[in-house]
Order: sequence, then structure tokens, then C-alpha cells
Amino acid sequence: MNTKFNFDVRDERNLTMLVDFYELTMGNGYFEKGLKDKIAYFDMFFRRVPDGGGYCIMAGVDQLIHYLNNLRFTDEDIEYLNSKNTFSEEFLQFLKDFKFTCDVWAVPEGNPVFPNEPLITVRGPVIQAQFIETMILLTINHQTLIATKANRICRAAGERPVMEFGSRRAQGYDGAIYGARAAIIGGCDSTACTISDKMFNIPAVGTMAHSWVQLFDTEYEAFKSWAELYPDNCLLLIDTYNVIKSGIPNAIKVFDEILKPLSKRPTGIRIDSGDITYLTKRCREMLDEAGYSDCKIVISNSLDEHIIKDVLDQGACIDSFGVGERLITAKSEPVFGGVYKLVAIENNNELIPKIKISENDEKITNPGFKKIIRIFDKNSHKALADLIALKHELIDESQPLTIFDPIHTWKRKKLINYYTKELQVQIFDKGKCIYTSPTVLEIKKFSKNETNKLWSEVLRFENPHNYYVDLSNNLWSLKQSLLHKYTNSYELSD
Amino acid sequence: MNTKFNFDVRDERNLTMLVDFYELTMGNGYFEKGLKDKIAYFDMFFRRVPDGGGYCIMAGVDQLIHYLNNLRFTDEDIEYLNSKNTFSEEFLQFLKDFKFTCDVWAVPEGNPVFPNEPLITVRGPVIQAQFIETMILLTINHQTLIATKANRICRAAGERPVMEFGSRRAQGYDGAIYGARAAIIGGCDSTACTISDKMFNIPAVGTMAHSWVQLFDTEYEAFKSWAELYPDNCLLLIDTYNVIKSGIPNAIKVFDEILKPLSKRPTGIRIDSGDITYLTKRCREMLDEAGYSDCKIVISNSLDEHIIKDVLDQGACIDSFGVGERLITAKSEPVFGGVYKLVAIENNNELIPKIKISENDEKITNPGFKKIIRIFDKNSHKALADLIALKHELIDESQPLTIFDPIHTWKRKKLINYYTKELQVQIFDKGKCIYTSPTVLEIKKFSKNETNKLWSEVLRFENPHNYYVDLSNNLWSLKQSLLHKYTNSYELSD
Repeated sequence: MNTKFNFDVRDERNLTMLVDFYELTMGNGYFEKGLKDKIAYFDMFFRRVPDGGGYCIMAGVDQLIHYLNNLRFTDEDIEYLNSKNTFSEEFLQFLKDFKFTCDVWAVPEGNPVFPNEPLITVRGPVIQAQFIETMILLTINHQTLIATKANRICRAAGERPVMEFGSRRAQGYDGAIYGARAAIIGGCDSTACTISDKMFNIPAVGTMAHSWVQLFDTEYEAFKSWAELYPDNCLLLIDTYNVIKSGIPNAIKVFDEILKPLSKRPTGIRIDSGDITYLTKRCREMLDEAGYSDCKIVISNSLDEHIIKDVLDQGACIDSFGVGERLITAKSEPVFGGVYKLVAIENNNELIPKIKISENDEKITNPGFKKIIRIFDKNSHKALADLIALKHELIDESQPLTIFDPIHTWKRKKLINYYTKELQVQIFDKGKCIYTSPTVLEIKKFSKNETNKLWSEVLRFENPHNYYVDLSNNLWSLKQSLLHKYTNSYELSD
Repeated sequence: MNTKFNFDVRDERNLTMLVDFYELTMGNGYFEKGLKDKIAYFDMFFRRVPDGGGYCIMAGVDQLIHYLNNLRFTDEDIEYLNSKNTFSEEFLQFLKDFKFTCDVWAVPEGNPVFPNEPLITVRGPVIQAQFIETMILLTINHQTLIATKANRICRAAGERPVMEFGSRRAQGYDGAIYGARAAIIGGCDSTACTISDKMFNIPAVGTMAHSWVQLFDTEYEAFKSWAELYPDNCLLLIDTYNVIKSGIPNAIKVFDEILKPLSKRPTGIRIDSGDITYLTKRCREMLDEAGYSDCKIVISNSLDEHIIKDVLDQGACIDSFGVGERLITAKSEPVFGGVYKLVAIENNNELIPKIKISENDEKITNPGFKKIIRIFDKNSHKALADLIALKHELIDESQPLTIFDPIHTWKRKKLINYYTKELQVQIFDKGKCIYTSPTVLEIKKFSKNETNKLWSEVLRFENPHNYYVDLSNNLWSLKQSLLHKYTNSYELSD
């Protein structure tokens, strides 16, 4: 690790214009209608865990902070917006003088999170709170998606290290750069993405491609050159021509001829194609017979959690995995459907909760200014349930706590001998950042620790137990009353 | 369109370190082995069209050019690399003085392209040609994926405009920014991504979110305010509460009360949830009855080419589509598997073709320095076939041309009355850019034109006819001879 060289290689692009155009037409509308100081509350949350998993891994908060700290409309931005013939001169002047003044709460990165929980909550003037919707969603959706996928893949690999190898198949430069960051948070040990190492101080690794082997007249010559160059880190890619007939015999020959006289041990061999189970078993035998039982076998070929689990179940002899396109794009489910919804406004300092109705029950939002309370068992320290509550609600930990399913309300559970922790922390106070992100490797460690507090039934790879995410009594009652109010208004209009 | 304000808002980040670490360990290896001036040829190509389609749409060349024009190792980069304790001092000095001197050929953006065709070819010193692998793949893979998906979606929509709405679900910032660019190349009419408009002069559009409606006490009031603000572009989102009972009656009321007295016509209504076919038919009836048969109906809810085709087949009344997450991530197949392979080297100015063998037949590469020749019918101007040929090969268009399937060589076809066009153009000459990209809207127009030259059997939405991509006689023979050479060498070693 290059702790000495922790460059602050931040993304210095002006991304203020990375915004859905309707945030601007609405902003102009709020401004023109005299609503620019109207206080609004928005929640960012998701509705479903990808891949049928039991939880997600929160990620992206540090990039969100960087964006919010750098929000500014340049003269060029204003000139561009003016050219659209859509916005009033006064609104454009307002944007020119724009100053971010919102309060923001976030669940810290690395935490396991669940559907319907407010991962980010924003309170502030509606033009501002609305404007940042696109970047909140884009940032948190992307990194949470990849951290969650990485967590699944790393769980499948057990204790074996997983390397993130996907840059070339990522969806855009940031897909690679921040995808590598999220992959580490989710549990990967290293990445091939050099710039992510430079930016986030996460270990970048890599040895040779097939082209190294092809460039030389023979595979043997290519391996020999490599061993001479990197005797302390000699990892050979052995599938350019034929693993069993050519690759492994040439590798062993080079280990014998070059490394042995130097008293060096080989690092490993890598296979990037073919029948993984068969090839790794044969290679293991051949390496062991030649006296290289310490030589690691690395695999990398369109892997994901299912293939990793399968080949390990079949007894493949693998020491570590390089995982590319299926991780960096979350191929099996590449969309993280986080949404950002208005949940309250203030009228003369009074909080007015708001709800979004839908014919689709699970699309109905939880109204009001809220927080997430995680409840732990005092003995096992395992997480028992999360409670979404109104912001002002307090829990008396000395008293039993009854939680209930928000749909099937007869399903109740009385908790005793527990303690609670609020998940959200405030990261901006009236526009000022009041939170310092841990390093990526610290977040990775934190995430492993927090994930270990979930019951194994929730951690289960497939068909996990549904972790309880219930609503407090007060929030549940508020939601019911708003639902009845709107339903009644339709019935009257029929 | 804001043609006046065509800002050159280039990505000024130093992305030189966005590279797989192994390109650097190999670079150091080539350098140390005295191979730094060894000339190598690499091809970038893909093996399969996503979604079972008949062709892909080339995209990303302009960003690749920008990257290559800005390749430079900063002092900070060198300091970081030095901290990895992997590279020789001489190699790091070499990087510090790095100057890009390769020749590069590319298929211009917007062209329909097919499996195994060299979309990008690089010739130059192996350290350089190897180093740019990651960014060539990352750039072309991403944009070609999205342009190809957009092309499918727009074809499903027929003549109806498609708007790209996906920024919030994109995989990282560039997923949104360059994804929007690629979506326009593939056929979309506009985007919600404001910064992409500013950067590429492609039209950004957008009106209101549900939060606008929720912020007001009633939906009617929200619509009324909007109509007052934007009487010339009044498009109302009508599904916040209930489309039929509340949204459409309120919209019609506001059209009557606000727009009619101003002699303005409504632009449209948008529906973002529910049963599209049922709701759009009912809305169409209600709008027509109220005298608003010119009011457009816009739909946006997890759409893709299949859903668009389905609802249109069912007679849904839709004038345009907003397509989000399934386009911007190419959800059904989010990985574009382009690869970058060594195809030749030079030894004392002699070209030595190289091949990558694989037990997987379709993974065997086409060796040599090559080009793509597209053959058109002289009468219909339709594209008949593509021929991958060696660079020096010429075709005498006055003579019949026999093409044959490279696997089933008895499948032959004699072409007469044809003309040819080379698809690749040289974009860098000894490191100097010699190509100017058209604007994105010009590329979009070019792409539509070129795509129209494909037979309808190739354009077919599902189960398209396989367009012929054959090898020239010379290339086919070269490939066979290299295959036999390597196979013989294994047999000898058995």
C-alpha cells in the first residue's frame, strides 16, 4: 500500500450541469411562483434488493459530498442556460449567486441497508433540494449497485481474495473509477484500475496479458523474460495457446530454470479461458508434482457469484479470482432503482407531510421527516430489525418494543434486551459539510463488521430471510391518515 | 437548438492513469527487455451483437481521440507509480518524456458494424499500443453498447420521437454524459441530461416531476401554476394521484381555463406509471372529446424496445417515449464484449502476423494488418457484404468478386455490379490527429443513412439475417497456415 502517496486526486470537473433538465424548468417555476424559499424534505430510497439478495451495501456518500461542496453555476453555465430561451433573467441571476444551504443526512458508506429506508434525506429550499436529485440518485445508485454486487461475489469466494478487473467493460470512465472504489467497499481485495489506486489508495494489481506471450516467438521465451524481470512476483498467464500441453509445462520449466537458481518461489499462474474445474485440478496436480504446491492458481473468465460457487462446489483448485464485466456492470441486474421523493414541506414553520400515491402498492411513499433506527440484541449484538420512525421519536431502550409488519399488521414481535442505533448521520448543516469520510479501506473493514451483525438467514446467498424493516406506530398512523384523505377525495369526485 | 453556444466543454481530467495495471507491468517489461521500439499491431473488435440484433452502431471515436490527444504522465503520476516499487527508474523517466507516436485507424461513428471487424487498429511501439488498450475498450465498448441499444429502441418506436431519460440510473457520471451522446447517435431525439446538451449541442428537454405536483395543495393548483408559467410548452405529468379520476380531468380543466383564453394549445400530457395501453386509450378519448386532439401523449416507465413494441401492437395511443434505465444501462445486455488483440509485429521492417489460439473456435483471432471493405449493390445501393482483407489488398470493381463463408467455405457467392468502400479511416498519423469528428447530430443523421443501406432482413428486430462478414482469400489462407503451424507444434510436443 502506498500510504505515503495519498493524493487528493478529486474530480475537478464542474458537474453542476449534470442534472435532468426538468429540475431546471421546475426550479424556474418555483422561483417565478414565489416558492424559492419554500422548505421541502426529500428522501432517497430503493424498493428492492438486486439479485434476490437480503441486503444492499451503501456506497457513494463521499462523491456526493464532493459534488455538493462544489455546486456552482459558472458564467458559461448561465450563458448556456440563457440560450435555451426557457428561464427568466431573474432566475438565471439567482443561479449565478447560488449558494447551497440545505441540511443533508446520509447512511454512512459500508452499512447494510434495506428497501424503503431513507438512505439520504435532504431538507432545504425546494429549488436546491430538487436540483440535486439527479446527482444524488446517480451517485448512490451506481456505487451501491456495485458494492452490493461485489459483496455477493466476495461472499461466494469465501476467504479467497477477489480482484476487480472490469475497467475495459465498464459503462464509461466513472463506471470504472468509482466502480472499482465501490467494489473494494463491497469486499474486493484489489483492482486492476490504476487511477482508482492513485485516487483512493486501494491496491492496484496486474501482471501480463496474452499479448505479452504473443509478442515473443515462443511462450517459453515470454515466460522466461517475465521471470527474469519479476522474480519476486512471477505470475504467468498460461492459456494463450494450450494450458495443459503448453502453458503449464512452460511455466514449470521457467520456475525451474530461472526462479529456482535465484531461490525464488513462483507467485502463481492465471487461467483466463476453458473448463475452469478441469484445468485447475490438472494444473494443481502438475504444479504439486513439480514441487510448486505453494504456487497459487488465479482464475479470471466472465466470473460472477454463481460461477464461483459452482466451480468451488465442483472442487476446482483456485486460490483467488479476477472478476471483470459481471461485477463492474452488475450484469445480472445492472439498474439500481433508487428514487428521490418529496416527503414533506413546511408552511409557516409547520411540517406538512406529503405522500405519493400509486396504484402499485409498493410505490406508495412513506411520508414525513424520518430516521432509521437499527435494533440490536444485547447478547449476540446481532441486528434484529430496523424501524423507520419520525425524526423526533425517541425509543426508551429500558422498555419492551413492539414492532409490526406495516402491511400485515397482526404480525407483531415484542423485543426486549435490545439497544438501538440511528443509521443516518447529518453530513451537511445549512449547506456546510460537517462530516469527514473514512478512507475506502476503512469503509471496507467497517462494512464487513456491520454485515457480520446480520443473522446468517439474512446473509444467505439465495432466498434470504426478509430482514424486518418496520414503521413506527406514529409513522404508520400518519401514512394511513394521508392515504385515507386522498382516497376520500377521489370518491367524492366520482 | 443552441447552435450559438457550442462550448468546447471537454473532459479536462487527466485520465492517463485510467489503465489496467498490467499494461504498466508489461510496459516496464518491454522497456527492460529492450523491446520499447518494437512495432506492434493491435485490433479492437467484438464477437457478438447484443440482444440478438443484426448489427451494432459504432460510437465513441471522438472521446478516444480526445484521450489520445491528451495522453501525458504528470509528475504526480510518476510519483505515484514510483511508490508502487514495481517499475525501473529508467522506465519512469521514459514515461515522463512519453510522446504518443502511433498510427490509428477507426471506423467512423454511426456506421453499422459487425462481429470480428477491426473497429480500431493501432500500429506503433508496443509499449504505447499496449498502454492504450484499456481506454480504447472502455470508450468504444460503452458508447457502442448504448448507441446500439438506442437504435433498437428507436426502431421499435417507429417514427415517434424517443427521449433519453436515464441519467439517474446510469453507471457513474460518464455513464450518463457519454451515454446520452451515444443514445442520440443511435437515434434518440433528445435527452434529459443537461450537461450533454451543453457539451455536445444535443437537445435537452424536461418539464415536471411528481414533486412539483406534490408541493402544491392540489394537483389542479400545480397544473394551473405550470400552465401560467409555460403556456407555450405546457406538458403536464398526470399520474401523481390517479390518471383517470384526477390527472386528466385536472389537465383538461387547466387547458380550458388558462391556455384557451390565451389562444395557446397544450403541448401534451405524460404518464409515468400504470397500464400504458389502457390509460393512453382513455386519455386520448378524453382529450379528443374535450377538443384537444392535438395534445400529445408521452409515456415513460421502465420502457425498452419490447415494451414499446408491445404497447403499440395493443393500440396504445402514444406520440413519444421517454426511455430511462433500460437504455442508459443497456439493461437486457449491459456488457459490450469488445476485445483488443495483438495481430502482428514487425521484425526488421518485415510484418509478422500473430494469432491467438483458443479451444473456443470463435475466440481465435484474425491475424495481420487488416481493413474492412463494405460492398454495395450498384443498383439498390444496399450493402451486400463486408470483407475483412489484408491492408495492401485491392479489389478490382470491374471484375466479379467471389466471397465465401470462412467456416463453411463451400458456401460461396459471386458478386457482380458492385462498388466498395473502405470502412476504417486513419485518425492518427505518427501520433498526430488527422481526423475531425462530425457533430453528434451529423453522426446521428449519417447513422440513419448508413443503416438504411442494410437489407430489411438484417434490420429485422428479432432473428435477423446474418450479414456476410467474410475474409479475403489472402487473409483466410494466412489464418489457416498460422493455425496449422501452432497445432503442429503441440502434436510434436505430445
